[in-house]
Amino acid sequence: MSLDAYQKLLERAREVYLLHSAAGTLQWDAETYLPPKAVPFRAEQLSFLEARAHLLATDRQVGDWIKACEDHGFPGDSDEAANVREWRREYDRATKLPVSLVEEFERICALARDEWKRARRDSDFAAFAPHLGKILELTRRRAELWGYKESPYDALLEGFEPGMTTRTLQPVFAELRASLVEILAQLRGESVPENYLKGDYPIPGQQALNQRIAMAFGYDFDGGRVDTTTHPFQTSLGPDDHRITTRYDEQMFLVSFYGVLHETGHALYEQGLRKEAVGTPIGSARSLGIHESQSRLWENHVGRSLSFWQKWHSTACEHLPDLRRYSPEDITRGAQRVAPTFIRVEADEVTYDLHILLRFEIEVALIEGKLELKELPAAWNSKFRDLLGLVVPTDSLGVLQDIHWSLGSFGYFPTYSLGNLNAAQLMRAADRQVPGLQSRLAAGDYAPLLDWLRANIHRPGQKYLSSELMTRATGEPTQAKYRIEYLRKKYLRG
Amino acid sequence: MSLDAYQKLLERAREVYLLHSAAGTLQWDAETYLPPKAVPFRAEQLSFLEARAHLLATDRQVGDWIKACEDHGFPGDSDEAANVREWRREYDRATKLPVSLVEEFERICALARDEWKRARRDSDFAAFAPHLGKILELTRRRAELWGYKESPYDALLEGFEPGMTTRTLQPVFAELRASLVEILAQLRGESVPENYLKGDYPIPGQQALNQRIAMAFGYDFDGGRVDTTTHPFQTSLGPDDHRITTRYDEQMFLVSFYGVLHETGHALYEQGLRKEAVGTPIGSARSLGIHESQSRLWENHVGRSLSFWQKWHSTACEHLPDLRRYSPEDITRGAQRVAPTFIRVEADEVTYDLHILLRFEIEVALIEGKLELKELPAAWNSKFRDLLGLVVPTDSLGVLQDIHWSLGSFGYFPTYSLGNLNAAQLMRAADRQVPGLQSRLAAGDYAPLLDWLRANIHRPGQKYLSSELMTRATGEPTQAKYRIEYLRKKYLRG
Repeated sequence: MSLDAYQKLLERAREVYLLHSAAGTLQWDAETYLPPKAVPFRAEQLSFLEARAHLLATDRQVGDWIKACEDHGFPGDSDEAANVREWRREYDRATKLPVSLVEEFERICALARDEWKRARRDSDFAAFAPHLGKILELTRRRAELWGYKESPYDALLEGFEPGMTTRTLQPVFAELRASLVEILAQLRGESVPENYLKGDYPIPGQQALNQRIAMAFGYDFDGGRVDTTTHPFQTSLGPDDHRITTRYDEQMFLVSFYGVLHETGHALYEQGLRKEAVGTPIGSARSLGIHESQSRLWENHVGRSLSFWQKWHSTACEHLPDLRRYSPEDITRGAQRVAPTFIRVEADEVTYDLHILLRFEIEVALIEGKLELKELPAAWNSKFRDLLGLVVPTDSLGVLQDIHWSLGSFGYFPTYSLGNLNAAQLMRAADRQVPGLQSRLAAGDYAPLLDWLRANIHRPGQKYLSSELMTRATGEPTQAKYRIEYLRKKYLRG
Repeated sequence: MSLDAYQKLLERAREVYLLHSAAGTLQWDAETYLPPKAVPFRAEQLSFLEARAHLLATDRQVGDWIKACEDHGFPGDSDEAANVREWRREYDRATKLPVSLVEEFERICALARDEWKRARRDSDFAAFAPHLGKILELTRRRAELWGYKESPYDALLEGFEPGMTTRTLQPVFAELRASLVEILAQLRGESVPENYLKGDYPIPGQQALNQRIAMAFGYDFDGGRVDTTTHPFQTSLGPDDHRITTRYDEQMFLVSFYGVLHETGHALYEQGLRKEAVGTPIGSARSLGIHESQSRLWENHVGRSLSFWQKWHSTACEHLPDLRRYSPEDITRGAQRVAPTFIRVEADEVTYDLHILLRFEIEVALIEGKLELKELPAAWNSKFRDLLGLVVPTDSLGVLQDIHWSLGSFGYFPTYSLGNLNAAQLMRAADRQVPGLQSRLAAGDYAPLLDWLRANIHRPGQKYLSSELMTRATGEPTQAKYRIEYLRKKYLRG
């Protein structure tokens, strides 16, 4: 199609993508190799590039071009219509807030971040509370400006999971909550020791093993690489540049192993997007909840299972000879260890979502004005006991543990659980649609699964909203029941 | 000072610097860690960033601001006057060529580069000649547009060594040429075997040793780092981000060792520039000939000497135990081995400049129209025999060996020899001005030398042209005699 306004939008998207991917490369470098003294100037480079990208994305002309495309009207199921719909969403979101509010929010968050670090160290919620209060106040104002139908929290969700609403999530999460508490209760007593599988696992051996499995999954190392960082992540710096990072513990190989499997899932999604559409919505990942479904699927559904270790045990032992002391069953037991923890990022497959559900309930209550800030630590601790059965000894291990609120990222956490739900639902659909999938996986043949994900999730990009994408792939929008079934089967053996 | 136009120029310089340093980071990544499939998109990112920087640097407003500063007239010895002088030089150089010529030149060079690769492989000068002819023709047109007083080659030199002229260089290089040929003749027969010092030098040991020496010289690793690349280089990505690269040969530790010492010299220069003036001329390195003087000084004058190895022998043996087989005298012999080679990049301290002088004479003759392209291989081979005493067996080892001409980089090579001459001249001046310098160096105390270089070369940045910078530091502009003295003393022992 040759509508001039559409061509202009494509060109502009390309320029914005070039700037974002350049900034992404500088960010990757900042996490991996940047000399310590270079940190302040790097921040200046990044804010310059991001400001340039923001100017290009939000200038009035872009709004005019989008309007012209809307007036023209592309066929409903065309790539062009999907691009225009998503450009509109991004443009409105980026332009509805006055610059003064954006700047004030950034300033408040920067201060809050420093204060949060001190508050967590000293377990001093009172010191952090006024900053969090400011952030909440500005967050509510942002939500009002962005607009919503039912709950102001919807306007926040929209930033991470477009189209998702609070009232859609609540019953799904409530069903998940009840089942997880029940499963966890049944698992009490069945404990695997904390340092199970502890051994001597040299880093080069871990690296070789991780790479072997990532390649078996289908990760293309000619368009990717693995580096070391404190906080593992996946980042895409171009249509053929999908990097992951991990961290190593020489006594616990599982840390880097499942970290790499997880990030490989993210990278496989990015590597499966349409390269010719890179930088446009239809060539971009749908949402965080879909992204996370891909990482969890490969990490947990594929990798954290007995059949997986039966297949890879001898390979793992070649790279990490100390693993010879353990059978495939032993390693699986270690990989499937369940034990409630205070800290979300250390949580296992069963308890992880409980951390998220707790945060979701608290975030919604805060944003909807149903929870006062001064009640927050007590509310956290009470919910934590209800959900995870642990008494939080100090706010550092409780309400202050996580950086995200000080970053102003409300509405972000639920996408983790959406990812888990989507992963289970997609895996079940793939099982039904791909003949003999489980035996192919057991044989280490991952191509049929990857092909199915490519066709159903990766290649569509942002062509559909998440609920339609899930419905097309699985027959219905995101449900809790498939994850519950999966966990019951895996952890309660029935 | 608060002249509005000057403030605008400072702001603009800052923006251009942010873009250049971002592009530099992407370039560094391309040399070190970029996945192979990501190469084409990286080229697109780089050309986008460089085009943006070029637009910012060359728009008409910048010309107006420079004019306003010139009309205002800053005091002759002020930083402002130096900045305005250099901005004028850069602006004129960047705007005097029509965009069509710039684009044509880039296109011709891109084709030539591919053709050169094939031609070198097949030793087929005739295939490369028409491309080189085109490049020469356009290079002469560029020189005419830039303008010059005596030789069109001056306009090319100006791009790498501002203020330098062909007629200034010719007598200096002629003096150097005669002496080098004579020194080389006297050294014939005194040969050190080719694989002298060959041993077992594991890379981690080389890395630790190299880092130890670089730190002793004064390289600040909190604002720098060392990575591995095929072609070693130094790059600065910000006021506190000065990175170097090297390559390792597990049997010949000298390759990475002197490579790192060389790049450390470059990095020390960059780390010694005024950080508060980063991105402006007075906070930037003066020229390639001055830059190269710093790398050669630390690599050769400091590092390639007996007193150096007497100081560091035991440290080197700790990191590379196989070195215990060699005495400090043995290692020095290996480091000072002289043997003519066909390939410039493999040349030693005595013969290196002969390669450069040959290229300089040929480049000047080509640009001034005194040498026909079809005579080039014969001219190369004949000069090569005169200077280095070797008969070139094939154009691959001769006139086709180097990529620079296919890049259109005429006028670049002489800065290597200028670097060598400046290094010797600076070292002699430091010797006279810093009490007990040689004994401090012998004791591994490099601070007095670095301090002298900081004060005399690094901190001035581009405040003065090279000839004035050298005169202020040493009493006279660049001479050949100090390098000749140095080589005679070092290699002829007298």
